[in-house]
Formats: sequence, structure tokens, C-alpha cells
Amino acid sequence: MAETHSLELLVQALRRLPGVGVKSAQRMAFHLLQHDRDGALQLARALEHATASVKHCSLCHTFTEDDVCPTCKDPRRDRTQLCVVETPADQAAMERTGAYKGLFFVLMGKLSPLDGVGPRDIGLQKLFDRIAAPAAPGEPEVREVILATNFTAEGETTAHVIAQALKGRTDVQVTRLARGVPVGSELEYVDLGTIAHALVDRR
Amino acid sequence: MAETHSLELLVQALRRLPGVGVKSAQRMAFHLLQHDRDGALQLARALEHATASVKHCSLCHTFTEDDVCPTCKDPRRDRTQLCVVETPADQAAMERTGAYKGLFFVLMGKLSPLDGVGPRDIGLQKLFDRIAAPAAPGEPEVREVILATNFTAEGETTAHVIAQALKGRTDVQVTRLARGVPVGSELEYVDLGTIAHALVDRR
Repeated sequence: MAETHSLELLVQALRRLPGVGVKSAQRMAFHLLQHDRDGALQLARALEHATASVKHCSLCHTFTEDDVCPTCKDPRRDRTQLCVVETPADQAAMERTGAYKGLFFVLMGKLSPLDGVGPRDIGLQKLFDRIAAPAAPGEPEVREVILATNFTAEGETTAHVIAQALKGRTDVQVTRLARGVPVGSELEYVDLGTIAHALVDRR
Repeated sequence: MAETHSLELLVQALRRLPGVGVKSAQRMAFHLLQHDRDGALQLARALEHATASVKHCSLCHTFTEDDVCPTCKDPRRDRTQLCVVETPADQAAMERTGAYKGLFFVLMGKLSPLDGVGPRDIGLQKLFDRIAAPAAPGEPEVREVILATNFTAEGETTAHVIAQALKGRTDVQVTRLARGVPVGSELEYVDLGTIAHALVDRR
């Protein structure tokens, strides 16, 4: 292809997006240049702005533009509960339920030894520091850590490692989201592992 | 979700990419900010650079940074043949075959009346002007127009409209890529319309 240099560079840059291969990247580049140059410039500005201004909350490690994120600042949240999730998207899912009023800690990843992701690559030490001391002097300490990592092999491993590390702390209760049959599902179509867990954890 | 403003803007900007919904856009934004800020800045620069420097070849309408693209400039190409394709990606596919040595005309779209895309929205008039006069004074004129638009409803319509418009020109031969059984395929699994076409066009 008699591709121009800057078009080629654009295709290469788009390929760095997760889930975008060379065909998609070409299609995106052609679309932007042919139909949406405004969108291309808007995206360029958004990328530069976000890269410059988005950092991590010093308390919960999620993305924020301030030192402390709005959730951690919110005085109405229960500061004795700390829900540990893998990503801001998981945090958002928890928030949308409206069933949780405590604080969060966002690991920004999960343990994955096969991919070389160890405890240092995600925020585990920061989590333990966070649990060891209250968010600010005079504030109530964390009494319950709710492990809400994903129910995948890596998420379960991450939850297990955190639970093990907190085993000695008698002042902190460590809980895990319940495993069971999803709301609205028919038993016939639920996988056997889930049914077995739901049976063991029946109440 | 306690999303930061610039993160939200980035997600919105990423959604303007074709085939990217809100979940993919969030995943892309998180990935760039968490793991690949270099990639984010590289993408921003590539977008700005491509938007500023990529324009259309004055002869074949494809993307280029110069007035005339390298293919149209190449003195070894047969200037009497003009292959009409929908997109630069289609042009690239034709080039990779190594079986075509003529010039191209890239429509940058296809007729699609249902979507409000008419002859003016794609480069049809530019194509007719290109056929009417040689690329440069003294150069050979176009003798054959090879219609290589896609074999979809829109591509066929586009080919039909071009063929109709060139019907009166006795000095220009209009051809269409052959329809037939793809190389390597078994008749049993080829759709009936394709087999019927291959039968009619047998040689």
C-alpha cells in the first residue's frame, strides 16, 4: 500500500489500544481522516489532557484529578468499610447497585504470576498501609475489608493473597462477595460450579 | 462512577472511533492511563500530525501528504488503465495481488441512498473528470476503467451508476472484476448466487 508516512504512524499508534488489530486500526484511521477530523482532534486533545491531569487518589488509588477522589472525600460514606476491587470499572459497577455506602480501594490490576504481575505491580502494599491507618487522623479505622475482585482465577488468587495477609488482624473482618446463582437465571442453564457454591453457601 | 472530568472526556472521544462502544472506550482509557501513557501521547501526536498533513491525491483521490500520491507519480504504471475502488484498504488489497500495474481511483465511499450518500458525497464527478482528461498534458488517456467496487448491494449500485454514466464513451472500455468461485473453495460450501454467476461467466 502506498501509505503515507503519517497515516502509517496513526495506524501504528491506534494499534496500541487494547483489542485493536491492524485491520481495525486502518478502519479507524480512514474513518477519522475521511469523515471525522474534528473527532480526531478532539481525541488528541482528550488524550493529552487526561495524560497530563489524571493521577491516582492517594487514599483509594483510583483515577482522579485531585489528591483525594470525590468518593473518599464524601463525608456521608461509611469509613469503617473498605471494598477492594480490581479496576475503576468494577468500582463503578458496585456504585451502580446503590447497595454499598462504604469506601473503596482500587487495586488497578490483579495478581497474575503467569504474566509476571506480582504484589508490587498492583497496589497491595498501599492497600495494607491504608488498612493499617485511618484515612485521616481522628477518623474511624477500617473494620471490614470486602473483597470484590473478579471471580476469575486471577481475581480469586488476588482475594486469597489479601485474605491471607490480613489473617493475623483480629480487628479487621475480611469478607468476600457471595458466590451463587445470578438473579433472573434458570438453574438448568447455570454452570455446575456456581450451583455447588450456592448450595454450600445456602442461608 | 466518580469519574474525573478529563477521563470522561477521553471516554467520549474514544467512542467516536468506529466500532467502539462505551465499555470498550472505558477499557481503552483505563489501559492507556494505567499501562501506556506513552502510547496515549504517541496516539495524540499521530492524530494531530495526520489530521494536519494528510489530504487527497489530486489525481486518484486517495490519502497522501503530497499533491499527487506515489502510485500516480510512478512512471512504470500503465496510465491507460484505471481501477476504481471504494477505499484505500481495497486499493491495498489490489496492490498486494501484484496482478495489476495500472492506476487507481479511490472513491472514498460508495453510493448508499438509504444512508443519504449520493454521487456528490463520493468522488464520482472527480472520477468522470479524471477519465475525461489525461493525468497530465501529453500523457496517454484512460482506455479501460476497471470497476473494483465491493460485491455488496452498495458496491454493485456504485459500479452500475459509473458504468451507465460511461456508456456513451466509445473510447473507454468499462470492465468489472469477475464474479466466481473463490480460489481454494469447495463447491458444496459456496453460495448458490456465486455458483450461478460462475456458470454464466464460464470461459
